[in-house]
Amino acid sequence: MQKSLSVYDSDGSTFVPLVVIELVSETKEEAIAWLLNRVRDKQQDGGAELLVEQLTPGAQGTEKDNPNVYVVGASWQRLLYGAEDVGFFKEFNDGSMRGFTYANKHNFKEFQGDGDGFLSMAECQYIIKHELDNLRAKDEAHVPGYPKMKLYPGKSVIRRMQSKGILVQVFPLHEKEELKRLSFSWFKKIKLSFQPLDDIRHYFGEGMALYFGFLEYFTLALIPMALIGIPYYLFDWEDYDKFTVFAGFNLVWCTVILELWKRLSASLAYGWGTLSRKKAFEEPRPGFHGVLGVNPVTGRAEPLYSNAKRQLRIYLVSVPFVLLCLYLSLYVMMIYFDMEGWALMIHDEEPTLWTGLLLFIPSIIYAVVIEIMNLIYRYAAEFLTGWENHRLESTFQNHLVLKVLVFNFFNCFASLFYIAFVMQDMVLLRQSLATLLITSQILNQIMEAFLPYWLQRRRNKKAHKRMIKTMEDKELPLSEQVKLEADMSTYLGTFDDYLELFLLFGYVSLFSCVYPLAAVLVVLNNVTEVYSDAFKMCKVFKRPFSEPAANIGVWQLAFEAMSVIAVVTNCALIGMSPQVKSYFPESETQLIMWVVGFEHFLLASKFILTFVIPDVPKHIQIKLSRLEFESLEALKKRVTE
Amino acid sequence: MQKSLSVYDSDGSTFVPLVVIELVSETKEEAIAWLLNRVRDKQQDGGAELLVEQLTPGAQGTEKDNPNVYVVGASWQRLLYGAEDVGFFKEFNDGSMRGFTYANKHNFKEFQGDGDGFLSMAECQYIIKHELDNLRAKDEAHVPGYPKMKLYPGKSVIRRMQSKGILVQVFPLHEKEELKRLSFSWFKKIKLSFQPLDDIRHYFGEGMALYFGFLEYFTLALIPMALIGIPYYLFDWEDYDKFTVFAGFNLVWCTVILELWKRLSASLAYGWGTLSRKKAFEEPRPGFHGVLGVNPVTGRAEPLYSNAKRQLRIYLVSVPFVLLCLYLSLYVMMIYFDMEGWALMIHDEEPTLWTGLLLFIPSIIYAVVIEIMNLIYRYAAEFLTGWENHRLESTFQNHLVLKVLVFNFFNCFASLFYIAFVMQDMVLLRQSLATLLITSQILNQIMEAFLPYWLQRRRNKKAHKRMIKTMEDKELPLSEQVKLEADMSTYLGTFDDYLELFLLFGYVSLFSCVYPLAAVLVVLNNVTEVYSDAFKMCKVFKRPFSEPAANIGVWQLAFEAMSVIAVVTNCALIGMSPQVKSYFPESETQLIMWVVGFEHFLLASKFILTFVIPDVPKHIQIKLSRLEFESLEALKKRVTE
Repeated sequence: MQKSLSVYDSDGSTFVPLVVIELVSETKEEAIAWLLNRVRDKQQDGGAELLVEQLTPGAQGTEKDNPNVYVVGASWQRLLYGAEDVGFFKEFNDGSMRGFTYANKHNFKEFQGDGDGFLSMAECQYIIKHELDNLRAKDEAHVPGYPKMKLYPGKSVIRRMQSKGILVQVFPLHEKEELKRLSFSWFKKIKLSFQPLDDIRHYFGEGMALYFGFLEYFTLALIPMALIGIPYYLFDWEDYDKFTVFAGFNLVWCTVILELWKRLSASLAYGWGTLSRKKAFEEPRPGFHGVLGVNPVTGRAEPLYSNAKRQLRIYLVSVPFVLLCLYLSLYVMMIYFDMEGWALMIHDEEPTLWTGLLLFIPSIIYAVVIEIMNLIYRYAAEFLTGWENHRLESTFQNHLVLKVLVFNFFNCFASLFYIAFVMQDMVLLRQSLATLLITSQILNQIMEAFLPYWLQRRRNKKAHKRMIKTMEDKELPLSEQVKLEADMSTYLGTFDDYLELFLLFGYVSLFSCVYPLAAVLVVLNNVTEVYSDAFKMCKVFKRPFSEPAANIGVWQLAFEAMSVIAVVTNCALIGMSPQVKSYFPESETQLIMWVVGFEHFLLASKFILTFVIPDVPKHIQIKLSRLEFESLEALKKRVTE
Repeated sequence: MQKSLSVYDSDGSTFVPLVVIELVSETKEEAIAWLLNRVRDKQQDGGAELLVEQLTPGAQGTEKDNPNVYVVGASWQRLLYGAEDVGFFKEFNDGSMRGFTYANKHNFKEFQGDGDGFLSMAECQYIIKHELDNLRAKDEAHVPGYPKMKLYPGKSVIRRMQSKGILVQVFPLHEKEELKRLSFSWFKKIKLSFQPLDDIRHYFGEGMALYFGFLEYFTLALIPMALIGIPYYLFDWEDYDKFTVFAGFNLVWCTVILELWKRLSASLAYGWGTLSRKKAFEEPRPGFHGVLGVNPVTGRAEPLYSNAKRQLRIYLVSVPFVLLCLYLSLYVMMIYFDMEGWALMIHDEEPTLWTGLLLFIPSIIYAVVIEIMNLIYRYAAEFLTGWENHRLESTFQNHLVLKVLVFNFFNCFASLFYIAFVMQDMVLLRQSLATLLITSQILNQIMEAFLPYWLQRRRNKKAHKRMIKTMEDKELPLSEQVKLEADMSTYLGTFDDYLELFLLFGYVSLFSCVYPLAAVLVVLNNVTEVYSDAFKMCKVFKRPFSEPAANIGVWQLAFEAMSVIAVVTNCALIGMSPQVKSYFPESETQLIMWVVGFEHFLLASKFILTFVIPDVPKHIQIKLSRLEFESLEALKKRVTE
């Protein structure tokens, strides 16, 4: 971790600034003083025991700059205690991964001297975020100076100030040296190589590293499909017979790669120490509210909220809302098909250049409407999931993902399903599929990385006209760096990136037997996606807080569900192909029976495969069992009175 | 635990006899002396540190009686240490279930005085069995006096002597007082009540109690089905329309009851302390052999066997063997249908009384052949699974169950499938189903309980003609009791009982829409099954060693698989019914599409239900998390050097 940047604490001791807190410029003095005191207070007094200092504006500081920007850091000792609090797993002397404890620190492999360099900067920032989030009100009835900002014992202070708008943002700082090294090995090299996953994890945390690991794995796994798809595309465009073999291969392949990914991700997560971190000990998410009580598992004071109420909210409000949205989406789709039919009618009556152009209008309107609906729905889903008041961040994410996933799936694929199974027009299906896939890829790349980058550059040029120094410059003073980073866009998590991959996986798997080239297109897209995602993480966005993750979570399930749906659609498509139909000239019934039989066989095989392939590699399973065994032995030995 | 019976140790101290070891009468003196010494030796010297004494023949002892019968017991202290070894979970002072430790013994709820009565007799017997099984050879090259009985360091002594035939049997003793009380509350009372599951668990162990719990639960869960089935049977015999509703109800019901059983069994197992016992720490099963090495999880010396070799044996030998057997079974079924066709032809040509009787001959022959095939296959499966050399008893059982299950399912239901889907003869299907169900029930009850009881009574009358005293007699001396029990049949585990339930579940669920009365028959059968099973456990068989179990294991999966298959078969049957067909007079294709769609909807609902209903009730989940949390905290606190 770099030590070049440091600020002086009020005691005169220096510390490395890790996290930035920005309050609105007109915040009342007493509220600021109270917050800073709470952050600095000793832990036994209910404080966070962190170091915090106001940022001194640099030489180029203008009047317009917000003076209420604070940098937060901590002593090494405090960070090591924090690492124990958050339950980091680190490599032990014997090579196994164990929960870090301060008392036991010298037995960890990479612990040297006073522990400087033992934790990565991302980990330190995570610890500080955790401690700030868990800074809870004691007996204050409200934030000092703001009688309307009610507090009650146990309420997260930071969260309340954030939700009431005095706290603008909390974000971790970039490390310029590290970032430069990472950028170079990640996306500035031209030569083909694997991504530096360990470095990514070191800088951005496990959640992000797993996303990039999955992106890379998914791309590599699609290459065999793509290679087989090319000759199909080139030589046998219309021969469904051989497509049957191709589709069969695809389906088995999808199952196998998803299973193997579980094993790979378990290996990665074990090495990063996140596999053994237990979910049950997660602190409640900052937005969680309820009556203060005692957590029955840990015995610690925390807000409690009735599970029955949550279930009622989910089943009586959220589920009907999602269903209503699906109905609306269906309705819009039907209008689109009506419009298209109407445009075709006009074109057929009197074909001119203008009516020819008219043919494209419905698709364009539909695409725009889909995007708008996705956007509005996304906000609604976030609001609803927040309102459901989940205790853990992970369950919140799961419910959000589920809501968004179902709607996006429906919105993106409903028209394809309609074309495939109601209109039964394979030529149109292939065309629509190709058009949707290619346009969505292009749009995504632009929207995701280059647009924000361009916007940011423009903004920077406007705001800091006098400033010649840029992020790349080593000599940039701290105040300038903070100002630059504060203006960068905020990365909202891997959600949208996974969603994009999920929809791509849908395009490649759902209708693979009519469009074998899809795999090729997705591979090409993913290769550029790695670069554009890496670019946006390093150059466009504020550094995100790292998120310890043991797997890709609910996305694994989402991909598996997609691969089950793919079996059904592909079998149906095969059954509808004229070549397969010609085998059963006299009886359509027999054809359907065979197809249904084949589908059931494939589904059964999928489940057996899922069952037979162990989710965690043997050698890691053994290490986990050993830890569990030792922890039970330890519990046995301890005499509790 | 009764203390009325006791024998004198060689030191003159008394002990309660728990387990009986019987060696063949011509065993060499030196082998006996060596074995007894090993059993008595201190644990640090590699012995089992148990108390063992030769049984002194009673007054009625004859020359013919085997003199080499030994009773084994242990001091209370030894048993408590053993309880820690085997990892029993007991109720702690704070109401939670914790792993018992000797050091911590006074903090357990039911621990009083010197610990007398803390462990049930079944638990003590389990501990002794565990210690005897783990009596391993040190540097002996062979059993003394038997140069051909090779031993190597780490080989289980008891197992080697058993496999070479000098050790006839090891079995736990009944407690007459307890047994009488249990019998009375279990099956001698006439009034309708739940079974005394806690008492059953106390006497026979968790595995057995879970079987009876499942049997009872299954019966109760079928009652709604049976109640709905009766009016269908009485009033609407031929109206398939309403059967569709009935079948739909059945399918959802099956899923729900199986899910709820998981929760109930988790509750039971938590209260019995088996839910938290970890599988990974199971000792290797006595039959497991391999090169002595170090277990990577526990660090203890034990035989190791390459997993790759085991997989090869499974996939290259066992799987092909099972497939071959299935093919044979199919072949036999086809011969049966040929025979039946031939008998029908003769009867049709010239119908007389004799040809009328001839019609039954093929079914009888087929039923007998099925039974014989099941029997032979059972032995082959046990041999093969033993040869696969699984490390744990539980994995051995899983593989055995899987093998036997697949074959039995095929053997019993293949003819029904053939009648339903190839011959499409619903009247014959209903007849066959009823016949198979009723005959198998009657045969089972006879074969299982009354036949062994009758055989045993006859044998006892012959062998102990002079003896007037019987098992019921309180004053029976120990030597007589041991002799009586040694002659009782050995209970081979819950395998056959579960298999029977599984097949009954198949009869009731697979074709429920053609024969709604099946549920009624199964309920009636199960009620008598409870009594006959209870009777056979208490009166017919030797007491079995208790087996700690947290759930019904692989059977849960088997029942769930059956309920998935039931969705497919019932949907197919509904689609084939003339009433449903009449809704789609013009297009068979459309009919099939609807049925397939309905089936997919049902399957999807099943999986969503499985996913939505948590497997462990919330309050138990919290207790488990707390234990886990505390055990991790304990590990953190322990400074390992």
